[in-house]
Amino acid sequence: MHNNTSKPLAVIAGYGEGLGHAIKKTFEDDGYRVVTISRENAMILADTTDPNEVNRAFSQIETLYGIPNVVICNTALLTIERFFVTTSSQFEQTWRASVMSVFNIAQAVIPSMIKAGNGSLLVTGATAGMKGSKNFSAFASAKFALRGLTQSLAREFQPNRIHIAHLIIDGIIWSEKSRERFPTLVKDHAIQPDDAAMTYLYLAKQPVTAWTHEVDIRPYREVF
Amino acid sequence: MHNNTSKPLAVIAGYGEGLGHAIKKTFEDDGYRVVTISRENAMILADTTDPNEVNRAFSQIETLYGIPNVVICNTALLTIERFFVTTSSQFEQTWRASVMSVFNIAQAVIPSMIKAGNGSLLVTGATAGMKGSKNFSAFASAKFALRGLTQSLAREFQPNRIHIAHLIIDGIIWSEKSRERFPTLVKDHAIQPDDAAMTYLYLAKQPVTAWTHEVDIRPYREVF
Amino acid sequence: MHNNTSKPLAVIAGYGEGLGHAIKKTFEDDGYRVVTISRENAMILADTTDPNEVNRAFSQIETLYGIPNVVICNTALLTIERFFVTTSSQFEQTWRASVMSVFNIAQAVIPSMIKAGNGSLLVTGATAGMKGSKNFSAFASAKFALRGLTQSLAREFQPNRIHIAHLIIDGIIWSEKSRERFPTLVKDHAIQPDDAAMTYLYLAKQPVTAWTHEVDIRPYREVF
Amino acid sequence: MHNNTSKPLAVIAGYGEGLGHAIKKTFEDDGYRVVTISRENAMILADTTDPNEVNRAFSQIETLYGIPNVVICNTALLTIERFFVTTSSQFEQTWRASVMSVFNIAQAVIPSMIKAGNGSLLVTGATAGMKGSKNFSAFASAKFALRGLTQSLAREFQPNRIHIAHLIIDGIIWSEKSRERFPTLVKDHAIQPDDAAMTYLYLAKQPVTAWTHEVDIRPYREVF
Repeated sequence: MHNNTSKPLAVIAGYGEGLGHAIKKTFEDDGYRVVTISRENAMILADTTDPNEVNRAFSQIETLYGIPNVVICNTALLTIERFFVTTSSQFEQTWRASVMSVFNIAQAVIPSMIKAGNGSLLVTGATAGMKGSKNFSAFASAKFALRGLTQSLAREFQPNRIHIAHLIIDGIIWSEKSRERFPTLVKDHAIQPDDAAMTYLYLAKQPVTAWTHEVDIRPYREVF
Repeated sequence: MHNNTSKPLAVIAGYGEGLGHAIKKTFEDDGYRVVTISRENAMILADTTDPNEVNRAFSQIETLYGIPNVVICNTALLTIERFFVTTSSQFEQTWRASVMSVFNIAQAVIPSMIKAGNGSLLVTGATAGMKGSKNFSAFASAKFALRGLTQSLAREFQPNRIHIAHLIIDGIIWSEKSRERFPTLVKDHAIQPDDAAMTYLYLAKQPVTAWTHEVDIRPYREVF
Repeated sequence: MHNNTSKPLAVIAGYGEGLGHAIKKTFEDDGYRVVTISRENAMILADTTDPNEVNRAFSQIETLYGIPNVVICNTALLTIERFFVTTSSQFEQTWRASVMSVFNIAQAVIPSMIKAGNGSLLVTGATAGMKGSKNFSAFASAKFALRGLTQSLAREFQPNRIHIAHLIIDGIIWSEKSRERFPTLVKDHAIQPDDAAMTYLYLAKQPVTAWTHEVDIRPYREVF
Repeated sequence: MHNNTSKPLAVIAGYGEGLGHAIKKTFEDDGYRVVTISRENAMILADTTDPNEVNRAFSQIETLYGIPNVVICNTALLTIERFFVTTSSQFEQTWRASVMSVFNIAQAVIPSMIKAGNGSLLVTGATAGMKGSKNFSAFASAKFALRGLTQSLAREFQPNRIHIAHLIIDGIIWSEKSRERFPTLVKDHAIQPDDAAMTYLYLAKQPVTAWTHEVDIRPYREVF
């Protein structure tokens, strides 16, 4: 039973306190219904690295709320580690969190979107997806993989009116966690989650003749 | 005398009927005053490839309207030609139209923007700035140059709170001219000027902690 | 017991008939001893996606032949498939073949190379590592991941005098298999394995002040 | 009158003491005849930014030595300067030295190469052609332009068996000049001209089924 279906539906996978919460609020303020997916503290609990859990989660969403208009993929495992200290299991988990999750989500949701005649898949990438740095072998490799996957999906499905975009987050997102990690962090030198969230909304609302595939965001002070 | 200064000021250089006009309308609808610069049919007449004319134009604008909040650079000369047919003069003019113009405009306006404490310079690039194709030696070389200039300006001036962005227009813009050139062009396979204009406005309004440096736009059907 | 140690040692992982064989011959002609690794038809049998098998293989190589001067990574699983037909298992195997293999090999061999004071790791990439195309979601994602890994390793280990390079093979390699797949393939429109092998040798012999990290090769007729 | 035509002919434009001299020696050692072009201290005196002088120089070369097999373009003007201090004339001269020169040379020599059925044009780029940095507005813009031009030429002329390659020199070349500018420069942290020259020779000798379009070189210690 999905009431309220005149309102568009957004799904946030890899939902969390910082950016996820800001995106939720920003989309709700704009008139979207928002469903969140995560392993904990979300409306739908699922491990997105597991295709079965993802299929179950999206079936549930379709039954309860309808076909999503926008799906935002924020799942990631940040691994910054000297290469010799990185285990093959860590390397794999880092890939699985970012890449297998988006593979599973895309498989679960794009067919319905094509039937519905529209849909957007917005994928959160990182600087590490553009440049592989020292101590980033696991994370850079995963974020490169994610970018390659996203490009392939765009080229395969945009002609079907499914918009696939890759956001490059270049900077530290302001959060309790990041302030603990970087105690001297200054507020406007970090990406404010609400500010970042506006880019997701902008992408979700782009008209069909002017779709963005890739966009970067960074604080004005970020060295790049 | 500049009345009305509570309204932000946008300047469009290389103003023309299609995209330029749509940007003007979009910014005006959002509450901007808009001043246009071109060699003809604009509020300020100037050849942007000439530093003296550009300095004069921006002095005039500052006197009449104040310091611009946003400057949009659309100047270009599209040259598609076999290499052996391209003359050195055509090659140079193509570079001059795109690159020298933005150099001159940036020199004229960034100092005032820095004094004012804010400003955005939005530069219109093209696919040819990302990939040099057959018969595009002049145009690709110019658009690559423009991208390099824009990146350098971003890295030099963003710490001063001057936002520099590069838009990659990937597709044919719908216009009388383009319909003449490509008579079979279908409407939603071309970039609609009003749709493209929204990206300029989005960039102009980005908060300081989530600035985009580079963004591409293309119709959903565009092969890329 | 490793006699003959005045001759440099090259190891080819993912050894196969076409390119692998040509690289072997090219290096041997230049005075290298060459050891090959593959799941079958190689001097050392190992599944490079398994860290234990890789560690065992390289222990064996060190005992029998010494520390490699050059390791060439050619392991790959070419998956070209519509996204909806690609299973999560295929997606994972494609990544595992290209990326996990190089992770395992790098972990097994770089520490010895650092002790030895020199070493080169030459990694075979593909066009799909630069651009994600339709029907290439698995392969492009894997090859992007490989490129990201390779860049990270270069930035982490080049200061230790370990040379890490990424070769972009852009074109079809001439082989019995490729001629079956593309029956109209013309000889000099395909990459001749011996010609490609020269680039591996060139990289292996680069002096320390002029190291290449990335190089592409393609037939003169290839559209790119 | 061109005797000796069994030996291949290489031309170095923008010939100078450091890299140019090393390339000359490396090619001569390999059996090439080498002709040098520069405004001074070269076999043929010409300002390569002037199309007439370039045409005259290459006519002279064809008459005296025959059609070049390889042309190496090293012309450049290194401008590192705050943007507000860079004059429009400096900006233009920087572009003219790198880009107009290669345009003129390509126009003068590619037609003869096509008639001859082979030829290589090797163009010296820089890191600044990949990334526009602070204080590099003129140089980065020029080197981006050069890369765009080179790509376009490759895509237009490689099917005619003319090999066009772009070398990215990432690091300081060891020379008297660079040691004056950076007095603490350590020898093997700088690119040794003879080491760099080997990459030019490698490109010149690539077989037609495995051509490189782009290759970077840097010292093992270079941060990138």
